[in-house]
Amino acid sequence: TAAVEDEAGTPISALTILSLLERVAGIIDNVQACQQRMEERQLELENAVKTLQIDILKLAKDHSMTGNTVQKLLEKTRKVSSNVKDVRQRVEKQNVRVKKVETTQEELLTRNKFRVVIYQG
Amino acid sequence: TAAVEDEAGTPISALTILSLLERVAGIIDNVQACQQRMEERQLELENAVKTLQIDILKLAKDHSMTGNTVQKLLEKTRKVSSNVKDVRQRVEKQNVRVKKVETTQEELLTRNKFRVVIYQG
Amino acid sequence: TAAVEDEAGTPISALTILSLLERVAGIIDNVQACQQRMEERQLELENAVKTLQIDILKLAKDHSMTGNTVQKLLEKTRKVSSNVKDVRQRVEKQNVRVKKVETTQEELLTRNKFRVVIYQG
Repeated sequence: TAAVEDEAGTPISALTILSLLERVAGIIDNVQACQQRMEERQLELENAVKTLQIDILKLAKDHSMTGNTVQKLLEKTRKVSSNVKDVRQRVEKQNVRVKKVETTQEELLTRNKFRVVIYQG
Repeated sequence: TAAVEDEAGTPISALTILSLLERVAGIIDNVQACQQRMEERQLELENAVKTLQIDILKLAKDHSMTGNTVQKLLEKTRKVSSNVKDVRQRVEKQNVRVKKVETTQEELLTRNKFRVVIYQG
Repeated sequence: TAAVEDEAGTPISALTILSLLERVAGIIDNVQACQQRMEERQLELENAVKTLQIDILKLAKDHSMTGNTVQKLLEKTRKVSSNVKDVRQRVEKQNVRVKKVETTQEELLTRNKFRVVIYQG
């Protein structure tokens, strides 16, 4: 076997060089295989992120619509509450009038108990 | 051309070794280029994820506020509904009183149709 | 130092081959280290994405519940509003009846101012 020698004169066999090259090739193979798997995971991640972006956009729209409905409900409830106060006040005023009619009626009932007396004397 | 030989005595030329090294270097270049692109995509992914985290946090806060408003609306609607029942009952009671006044008034109107007759006999 | 020679007859020393191999090994080391860090970042990204998926699912459920409550509130508010209209109409009808009683009472009060005069002549 012919040999190459390093500076110190130690023979470096072609075997050594070739086996070093083989080891390097083996490491590169592993690195490439790992990179391949990482690329697949990265693609899955990118798809997952796209889905999340779509989902959160939809949820934001849905919530915005809900927020609008809630605003309208707030407005509607204020109106209804105001109407109830209004009706309550009308009932109060009517209460005063009914009381007046009742009182006057009491008087009329008392007054109406009269007798006519006619005597000669 | 001098040559190295392997164990079997087959000459392995420097050309072979150098071209193997060149192939290895080429593969490493590809791996590095691919890694570079993957790192850029990973950085974009990380930014996209950060944005999503901010967005979902904001949406969660907005929804929480909406939830609070809805709770207050539930409470308010209960009160208004209770007030309406209350007013309705007052109107019912007033209805009874008005009916009594109407009935009594009917009697009074009947009673008031009286004549005084005085005769000498 | 023995040497190998390339086709042109230029001597390529074992030193050159070994130092090339060393450089290649160095580059592969860097690539592997970078790949390692990228794998760690990828794992963090995957965990962050899983968390986001859980969070957005929870938020979607919470919002769905809020949406249902809002629907019930819409329905409840419609009923209350309808009840208020109903009570208002009853108060109006009662108003008409009270007015009639008041008017008739006015007449009764006027009519009741009567005198009985009996004279001989």
